[in-house]
Amino acid sequence: MDGHGANLPGVIALRRDLHAFPETGFLEYRTAALAAETLSGLGYAVRVGPEVMRADAMAGRPSEAAILAAQQAARAAGTPEHWIARMPGGQPGVVAELTRGEGPVLAFRFDMDALPVLETVAAAHRPVAEGFASGRPGTMHACGHDGHTAIGLTLAARLAADTGWRGRLRLIFQPTEEGGRGAKPMAEAGILDDVDWFFCGHLGCLLPSGKVAARATGFLFSRKLDVVFTGRAAHAAMGPQEGRNALLAAAAAALGLHAIARHATEATHVNVGRLVAGTGRNIIADRAEMQIEVRGETEAGLAYMAGRAEAVIAGAAAMQGVTFTTQVMGETISADTSPEAAAIVARAGAGLAEMVPDWPIGGGDDATFMMRAVQRRGGKAAYFILGADLAAVHHAVDFDIDEAALETGVRLFTRIAHSILGPGPAAQEPAAQEHAA
Amino acid sequence: MDGHGANLPGVIALRRDLHAFPETGFLEYRTAALAAETLSGLGYAVRVGPEVMRADAMAGRPSEAAILAAQQAARAAGTPEHWIARMPGGQPGVVAELTRGEGPVLAFRFDMDALPVLETVAAAHRPVAEGFASGRPGTMHACGHDGHTAIGLTLAARLAADTGWRGRLRLIFQPTEEGGRGAKPMAEAGILDDVDWFFCGHLGCLLPSGKVAARATGFLFSRKLDVVFTGRAAHAAMGPQEGRNALLAAAAAALGLHAIARHATEATHVNVGRLVAGTGRNIIADRAEMQIEVRGETEAGLAYMAGRAEAVIAGAAAMQGVTFTTQVMGETISADTSPEAAAIVARAGAGLAEMVPDWPIGGGDDATFMMRAVQRRGGKAAYFILGADLAAVHHAVDFDIDEAALETGVRLFTRIAHSILGPGPAAQEPAAQEHAA
Amino acid sequence: MDGHGANLPGVIALRRDLHAFPETGFLEYRTAALAAETLSGLGYAVRVGPEVMRADAMAGRPSEAAILAAQQAARAAGTPEHWIARMPGGQPGVVAELTRGEGPVLAFRFDMDALPVLETVAAAHRPVAEGFASGRPGTMHACGHDGHTAIGLTLAARLAADTGWRGRLRLIFQPTEEGGRGAKPMAEAGILDDVDWFFCGHLGCLLPSGKVAARATGFLFSRKLDVVFTGRAAHAAMGPQEGRNALLAAAAAALGLHAIARHATEATHVNVGRLVAGTGRNIIADRAEMQIEVRGETEAGLAYMAGRAEAVIAGAAAMQGVTFTTQVMGETISADTSPEAAAIVARAGAGLAEMVPDWPIGGGDDATFMMRAVQRRGGKAAYFILGADLAAVHHAVDFDIDEAALETGVRLFTRIAHSILGPGPAAQEPAAQEHAA
Amino acid sequence: MDGHGANLPGVIALRRDLHAFPETGFLEYRTAALAAETLSGLGYAVRVGPEVMRADAMAGRPSEAAILAAQQAARAAGTPEHWIARMPGGQPGVVAELTRGEGPVLAFRFDMDALPVLETVAAAHRPVAEGFASGRPGTMHACGHDGHTAIGLTLAARLAADTGWRGRLRLIFQPTEEGGRGAKPMAEAGILDDVDWFFCGHLGCLLPSGKVAARATGFLFSRKLDVVFTGRAAHAAMGPQEGRNALLAAAAAALGLHAIARHATEATHVNVGRLVAGTGRNIIADRAEMQIEVRGETEAGLAYMAGRAEAVIAGAAAMQGVTFTTQVMGETISADTSPEAAAIVARAGAGLAEMVPDWPIGGGDDATFMMRAVQRRGGKAAYFILGADLAAVHHAVDFDIDEAALETGVRLFTRIAHSILGPGPAAQEPAAQEHAA
Repeated sequence: MDGHGANLPGVIALRRDLHAFPETGFLEYRTAALAAETLSGLGYAVRVGPEVMRADAMAGRPSEAAILAAQQAARAAGTPEHWIARMPGGQPGVVAELTRGEGPVLAFRFDMDALPVLETVAAAHRPVAEGFASGRPGTMHACGHDGHTAIGLTLAARLAADTGWRGRLRLIFQPTEEGGRGAKPMAEAGILDDVDWFFCGHLGCLLPSGKVAARATGFLFSRKLDVVFTGRAAHAAMGPQEGRNALLAAAAAALGLHAIARHATEATHVNVGRLVAGTGRNIIADRAEMQIEVRGETEAGLAYMAGRAEAVIAGAAAMQGVTFTTQVMGETISADTSPEAAAIVARAGAGLAEMVPDWPIGGGDDATFMMRAVQRRGGKAAYFILGADLAAVHHAVDFDIDEAALETGVRLFTRIAHSILGPGPAAQEPAAQEHAA
Repeated sequence: MDGHGANLPGVIALRRDLHAFPETGFLEYRTAALAAETLSGLGYAVRVGPEVMRADAMAGRPSEAAILAAQQAARAAGTPEHWIARMPGGQPGVVAELTRGEGPVLAFRFDMDALPVLETVAAAHRPVAEGFASGRPGTMHACGHDGHTAIGLTLAARLAADTGWRGRLRLIFQPTEEGGRGAKPMAEAGILDDVDWFFCGHLGCLLPSGKVAARATGFLFSRKLDVVFTGRAAHAAMGPQEGRNALLAAAAAALGLHAIARHATEATHVNVGRLVAGTGRNIIADRAEMQIEVRGETEAGLAYMAGRAEAVIAGAAAMQGVTFTTQVMGETISADTSPEAAAIVARAGAGLAEMVPDWPIGGGDDATFMMRAVQRRGGKAAYFILGADLAAVHHAVDFDIDEAALETGVRLFTRIAHSILGPGPAAQEPAAQEHAA
Repeated sequence: MDGHGANLPGVIALRRDLHAFPETGFLEYRTAALAAETLSGLGYAVRVGPEVMRADAMAGRPSEAAILAAQQAARAAGTPEHWIARMPGGQPGVVAELTRGEGPVLAFRFDMDALPVLETVAAAHRPVAEGFASGRPGTMHACGHDGHTAIGLTLAARLAADTGWRGRLRLIFQPTEEGGRGAKPMAEAGILDDVDWFFCGHLGCLLPSGKVAARATGFLFSRKLDVVFTGRAAHAAMGPQEGRNALLAAAAAALGLHAIARHATEATHVNVGRLVAGTGRNIIADRAEMQIEVRGETEAGLAYMAGRAEAVIAGAAAMQGVTFTTQVMGETISADTSPEAAAIVARAGAGLAEMVPDWPIGGGDDATFMMRAVQRRGGKAAYFILGADLAAVHHAVDFDIDEAALETGVRLFTRIAHSILGPGPAAQEPAAQEHAA
Repeated sequence: MDGHGANLPGVIALRRDLHAFPETGFLEYRTAALAAETLSGLGYAVRVGPEVMRADAMAGRPSEAAILAAQQAARAAGTPEHWIARMPGGQPGVVAELTRGEGPVLAFRFDMDALPVLETVAAAHRPVAEGFASGRPGTMHACGHDGHTAIGLTLAARLAADTGWRGRLRLIFQPTEEGGRGAKPMAEAGILDDVDWFFCGHLGCLLPSGKVAARATGFLFSRKLDVVFTGRAAHAAMGPQEGRNALLAAAAAALGLHAIARHATEATHVNVGRLVAGTGRNIIADRAEMQIEVRGETEAGLAYMAGRAEAVIAGAAAMQGVTFTTQVMGETISADTSPEAAAIVARAGAGLAEMVPDWPIGGGDDATFMMRAVQRRGGKAAYFILGADLAAVHHAVDFDIDEAALETGVRLFTRIAHSILGPGPAAQEPAAQEHAA
């Protein structure tokens, strides 16, 4: 192991470093390059960019200007140019591999993206109090993916230092989990095609610290849509009757969407997360854009919500005499954890945490695309929940996680690796090593 | 007269030059500097910036970043640094004066600002067809102020070349008519305090080419408000019940504002011109901003609309359990044209255009602050309408004016000047001179 | 003259009697029969029912059940059966005629209907204080038509007692002015075809007591529509996703209709006056009905509002996946007072009240159908405003009129009659007679 | 046993008779009297009216006029006067008891009320095709309670004819299950206080014919509210600015209520089932009434929904400057089936139907008040689902049940009775007897 891996800071310090430099979907240049550089230094074979992400499967890619700005910000933060150059076009995916003789192919996935949330500046918020709050106003790790990436890199170092196992270990650092956009292009690039075992997890999800659920349930199918209403501008006092008001179409649509009757027999959700309309105060707004999503527990439930949403949008446009377009910007699907994989998580977690069989994830995660890719060819996949007390609900401006869960996460992944690749966890987890972490 | 004035392009060419470089309120750096440089070259005494605009009377000043960006854009377009330096802080007002012996103080006012409108790229739109469309996407001269400024500068050259009159001529180039924000700080700087006669006008307003109305009526009182709703963010699927949705508050407010019962006995208007809410698709929006305005023909009518608007906003916030703030960003008031000044316009226009006594302006113009400042000390003021066929209603993306009206405008102002400062227009308007224009 | 006319109570007592028994459109059985009986007793030739109202021109006729109930209520209040029998099918129109030798044909029109308003029970409300409040809860003379009818009957007695005039006097007692439904079927029955002069007026309209305006302006074109949304019922908790919510369609339509951009250059109005939706608390509403109206100063303005309203209704239905129907229930049109007729009102009013040339009616009145019918054949028509201080705005639950205006109204009509039919008013208005009124 | 019971028609015919004469909550006079008369005839001791329903626990009692009209309609349909006289004030509850020696007290509950739904007249709807559709337009058995009552009466006859059991059998025919209003006043009258075993069930609930679920789950807590908005009427064209629009307040509230963010971790519902606003087309509506309900799986979930609903209503009122009141009109609570009672249902159903352990009721049923009353004193209670194919979802205009489920229901209750009161079902259910049913 070279100096890079050896010098890796502890998992908490890593998470805090990542927390301070959040990057949103397809723009994780600094994060991905940090991962690639670290993994490379640890001896992993690292592939990045278009090689591990199919461009034609990317929905909702940011504008070229946004990509250039993200690259520039990463550069300014010290990111080596050669990694940026290898991840053009908003494709900061990273796949690292370490092979030790013959054995199963085991893949772990960690997501890296942050959210367009303005982190609170309240003194009581630990990232503020301890000086690792977001340095990029309007962007925040408000879902715990900083922790996921920190766990993945720490795990990479531990398993690189451990020569007892046999087989192939593949670590996937995925951009753009939010919006359900990053996993599909990675899965379609074929990186899961030979995988025997696949595991991933999520911190928090209202499961308290000290508990682990072997199997996340309640993955929702979701569809992300961008809607644009186009009307006609006019002077708001001299000729409002000449205008066609796109802002009012969007307002009516927003209310109508949130008022869609929720399904009686399954969880269904809708959200208009962003609405931008109009140009000037005394002009009838001729354009409005909305970012929305609909979700359901089943494909039928999603189809119901999506169908009702289309009707609401079309009707709201008709009310104002404006036209509209909708564009799919991302999707998530449901997937079931393989019982064999859940059993491995359950055994791995025993003694480390209080094991809970199932826990609702309460949202979605596009890791399901990867799980399905593995299962389609006969591999086994699991998605578990890593309990962590939260300061506030996911996506809130004062979200924060109990950092004690990070080390639990590293150990859980380590034990799972040993279950699959051998030898047993008992031999591989000496107290001394852990204390050093 | 020095070469500057002599080289002034024709009024149509000037208007087209201005049309191609539109600048919005308090950011008219290139336009104001062009005016100042031209007027200076013509021999006028020129005052600019804080000297002619009181900072403490400016509402809705842009951010420092926006001001710096506007200055930088003007610089890049060749604007001399010394003018920029003299107009710091978003104060690009210009007052030029020429004195010839004893006589009345006569002031004319021209407004310079453009709008946040994305000009159409349709080939049939003359600015596109003839190559003078906005070079600054998202900003457009969609109300005819480019024509006003072109008329003002052309007029300045004509009157500078004419030595027959006596008195003091003051030309006011005002930023930020839109939003009702630029006239008040200029009036409060005292630039109208010694004015005997004040005239200004507006192109278009649905009055056809070839007609002039001596007196604009129907000035509306207006109030411009910025509204901010603040809620609580939450994950839209994992914990929507924890959120408080500022986007839905704004949507309900927008619909409720437009649904305010209009007054039976006077024109009243309301517009939500801009709405920006939320950050990400799967996050309950915790912030929404609206730019709105209300108008009435009388102070009571405005108070009615403003009172109802406050109730709608407060109620919409309460519906969603969010808080809100409102801030006044500008105001316009009504003013009556002095009969003596209207009579001068009527006489000046006779023979030049078909005169109409009154014409509704159909909106507002903060020149009323200047009119009231003049009238308060016994001066006379008029606001006339200069007929011009329009390609589309004011503020529309395909707004354009019949450029033939520009020369009519220059001549009308010239004749008014001669009415006040002598000698009579007959002596001052030889056919040859006009044909050369 | 028989005892009936001689025994007619004073105009104030008559108005109070009518106020206590209000009847809404096409259901004015007691009122019309009272008029018919009185006029008959005074010696007028009286025509009623289908003879003076074309059934095929009646829009928005009440249900057969409502008509039967109204007849029954009138019967219970002592209305003679023979009048009820002559006014079947919701056609309680009355036309009375008195002919004295040769002379012009002069017609006056008085409307008789009340409104579906629940009169206040506040002790300060004069009808309550003095014991003549509506005895029919939910129905109220809240627009002054009780006064109109009282004026018409008092006038009928005066002119019957006066033998000095020559010509033909026709008094029209019209049902159903509200909603713009009663005048058209009467005009289409031909009762105006031979009329040389036609006059009518309205009490109040914000013109103070002691003033009369010779010419009402601002008649609005209006269209009345009934809208029905039809969705699909479902259990609100067991299967809301199976429902299609007509109530929400109506709610969105109501907001959208009130939010239609009002026209910049003319008064335009819209109102959703009634909305009934749904059947039970835990059922997704499968039906919603709305009664709406749109208005404009011009036919183009009305067409604009009606067109936008159709779009709003169609769009709101589409949002909820429900179907809809619209049905025209009434219309009013604009009409101009003939200058010759206005001049007669002006002369007649001089000395009786302070004359105002014009006054905006601020709404509409379907008497315009009668005015146009008269003018089409060369007759002259006027609509004047009879000033009367009001306790509250028209249609309010505490509406009341200054009853002093009633006698002024009787005298004004009397003077107009004398202007047309001779001899001059001076001879016909002895002080003694008036004091007796 | 007298002739009455012997002459009881088959369960299908009974259901059809009830279907043709539906009665809504607290107005089930004909239905209750039919039950009382039948049960009396079968030899049961029958108590009715105030004796079995506490008036002070009745929420949302109909108006006195509605009660009188229901009594009159029942009378007209041949209902004996003496039963009507014993059930004054909207209290048509019936409790029938048969005692055979010593033994446990066993209670069964059947609900009797219909819904304010206008039954479809489509020829394909079996009640239409076979001539038993509602004879009372606007009222319909659209939830299957006609089947429940028919099962209860048929069961009463079978158990009256069966002398093998020992103990006390109490049959409760409850009015007003819809709206959650009828069970509580019966429970508070003490009729469950001595009950050892309590069973009830519901037809349908999306469980197919041939299946029975031993335990209904997912009972929702619910609250039913009536909301009244009070504004100010005004003429919609002459003075809309004087009005305060209660109709728009209700419309905004309806949209806002349906748009309340549903809870992430439990089923929550809201419905505005009825909205009545305004009086006349050209009057600003001064009153609006809404019937709403909110539901949650837990008391906390209900409190969340109710709290948000109150905020929405208050905010909507504030938007329009109107006042409002809310009144609780009913409530349902959750209750758990006792395991011992579920076990009895499971055994009783075996062989009769395919047994399913749990099935979500998908709504609520105020039988939970009775279950809790029984359990509070140590008794055992169960609520099961009796599978029945449906023509449409509950509460739909074309709702209908597979009538084959009725006989299954009778047998299931019979077997349960034998389980508790002995002897075993095998002895009591000879094939011959069943075929006769």
